[in-house]
Amino acid sequence: MMTDQMLQPGSTIGILGGGQLGRMLAMAAARLGLRCYIYAPEDDPPAAQVADRTLTAAWDDLAALSAFAESVDVITYEFENVPITVVDHLISLGAIVRPGRLALATAQERVAEKTFLNGIGITTAPWRAVTDLASLRQAREVLGPGILKTCRNGYDGKGQLRINGPDDLVAAQALLAVPCIYEGFVPFVREISVIGARGTQGQVICYDPSVNTHENGILRRSVVPAPLRVETAFAAIDIVTRMLDELDYVGVIGVEMFEMKDGALWVNEFAPRVHNTGHWTIEACVISQFEQHIRAVAGWPLGDPMRHSDAEMVNLIGDEIGQVESLAREPLTGVHHYGKAEVRAGRKMGHYTRLRPLGGV
Amino acid sequence: MMTDQMLQPGSTIGILGGGQLGRMLAMAAARLGLRCYIYAPEDDPPAAQVADRTLTAAWDDLAALSAFAESVDVITYEFENVPITVVDHLISLGAIVRPGRLALATAQERVAEKTFLNGIGITTAPWRAVTDLASLRQAREVLGPGILKTCRNGYDGKGQLRINGPDDLVAAQALLAVPCIYEGFVPFVREISVIGARGTQGQVICYDPSVNTHENGILRRSVVPAPLRVETAFAAIDIVTRMLDELDYVGVIGVEMFEMKDGALWVNEFAPRVHNTGHWTIEACVISQFEQHIRAVAGWPLGDPMRHSDAEMVNLIGDEIGQVESLAREPLTGVHHYGKAEVRAGRKMGHYTRLRPLGGV
Repeated sequence: MMTDQMLQPGSTIGILGGGQLGRMLAMAAARLGLRCYIYAPEDDPPAAQVADRTLTAAWDDLAALSAFAESVDVITYEFENVPITVVDHLISLGAIVRPGRLALATAQERVAEKTFLNGIGITTAPWRAVTDLASLRQAREVLGPGILKTCRNGYDGKGQLRINGPDDLVAAQALLAVPCIYEGFVPFVREISVIGARGTQGQVICYDPSVNTHENGILRRSVVPAPLRVETAFAAIDIVTRMLDELDYVGVIGVEMFEMKDGALWVNEFAPRVHNTGHWTIEACVISQFEQHIRAVAGWPLGDPMRHSDAEMVNLIGDEIGQVESLAREPLTGVHHYGKAEVRAGRKMGHYTRLRPLGGV
Repeated sequence: MMTDQMLQPGSTIGILGGGQLGRMLAMAAARLGLRCYIYAPEDDPPAAQVADRTLTAAWDDLAALSAFAESVDVITYEFENVPITVVDHLISLGAIVRPGRLALATAQERVAEKTFLNGIGITTAPWRAVTDLASLRQAREVLGPGILKTCRNGYDGKGQLRINGPDDLVAAQALLAVPCIYEGFVPFVREISVIGARGTQGQVICYDPSVNTHENGILRRSVVPAPLRVETAFAAIDIVTRMLDELDYVGVIGVEMFEMKDGALWVNEFAPRVHNTGHWTIEACVISQFEQHIRAVAGWPLGDPMRHSDAEMVNLIGDEIGQVESLAREPLTGVHHYGKAEVRAGRKMGHYTRLRPLGGV
């Protein structure tokens, strides 16, 4: 196990999870001469095809987790729903897990996340924890129309329900089987996100904010630069920096924010990992968010986040992956196929990023 | 085995050789959802760490080669000294090998290479095949001072000897144990190279020429743009296009040329593979030479070779790899470590590429 020293080439980074984010992390690690060891419950996960080794085992297989911890120099995770018990077990063995337990536990539970953000002076949507129909009714009366979300395991619009009037309360019953949060409607102008990173010595870098659009609860498109006033962009970076410092964070974070009419920024949520809205950094920066994360967790110097081009990233969802051949002919366009065998509706299968000269139209 | 159709994601590309070029090819293939299967004689080659599978076997292991051919959809090679018998065996099994036998056989033997080039009207250094001291003396008398090179297996300045006066003829004895070529001295202004690619439908693309400098026979630096007149750049691209068409080539080629005082271009040699002088394309283009090669051999559309930035690539040789930590702090600089365990003098251990805005100073 390593301390705060820079992990030498030839060392091994353990990655919990084997999806496309793990895949792109493994490719970034290879650039630096670092090996990756993937831990994932499913057979032939996308990351395994480019990693040095893969361990296929369940999240509750403590013996497998112990063997994994023995074989790696530092451990990170590529998705935020890794059971916290997994991380606790790894830490109990002396493993170093980055970005760390606090960030993971906070991001996994929406009430904890909002409490953390509000506690360090960051504005969020007004919210109430709700556990049943009565508390949901009460929250709706106070906050007006809004969104009911399960506190855990929501992603890509799953586990969410828009509540406009009393009629929607019936449909809410299903979600209320687990603890939920009710968030008042946010009349935002646009959604932006910032990909930031913090190193082992506390140094922080942020990529330029992107403006993001969603369809059916799934990210469709991220564009840089976002059309922000300079002071808004600085405020966004300040928010991310405070979050990283408060969490004593090591690695890349993705922070989604709402920009309001008056320029104020409200944080929607954060992901303690590389983030879909940062995929444009592969083509538009020399150091991508993936390499940045590897550098951070491996104790390397953080890299230059400067953007050499404007960029637009678009997700390929479900059978849109069939567009890969025609996209491959487009100028200045990088196409990415995640190597997933099965095409499913709503599944992120790949993405593409198109560059434009800086400041062009 | 595939025909001329586009290889679908999930398919497997076999790569003969497991060095850093195979490593970067495997990473590029993964972007497109393609798997790589490495065939290499040595244990734990750099490419194995990022490839889906690796077969460790000798070049003369026909059973292993047959099993390899059975497991892949198309075969390519990452170095030009793959024994031609290997390719012949694979082709006899019905395997598709790209860039192909002709390009490989021609590039492997300097007399064949020069004969091919001169035969399609491309100027080279004046040369003579030499087999003994007598024919070397005669060649030197006709051509003046020059360089004696073994016809096969030369790379990074190995198997070469500069012949100035009669005193050097004694040292030449060792090289003359195998067939050699004597090349008259070329009073060039600069050395440039062009990375080109040809697809299965005959389409050709070329990246911008780079200007290259060597130290101790090993490439030190490649810079784009090269300071060429426009007509010289077009002439360079025309030469590469003719070579690709004549060889009925599929894949990426690296062609080294000398620019003479009058702007004429003489071809020095070509490599039937991705090339060290094209590493800058990883950072300065959306589609790198590695992805371009994978696209070509997989029957995909070729990608846009446009450069979005100026670039300088520098090799890290031997213990220079220790500079990785300080280089990682540099702005707009991508560092690459090839994952080789053993540092040896003269061994290519990694490289870095620094970007500059287009047309800057």
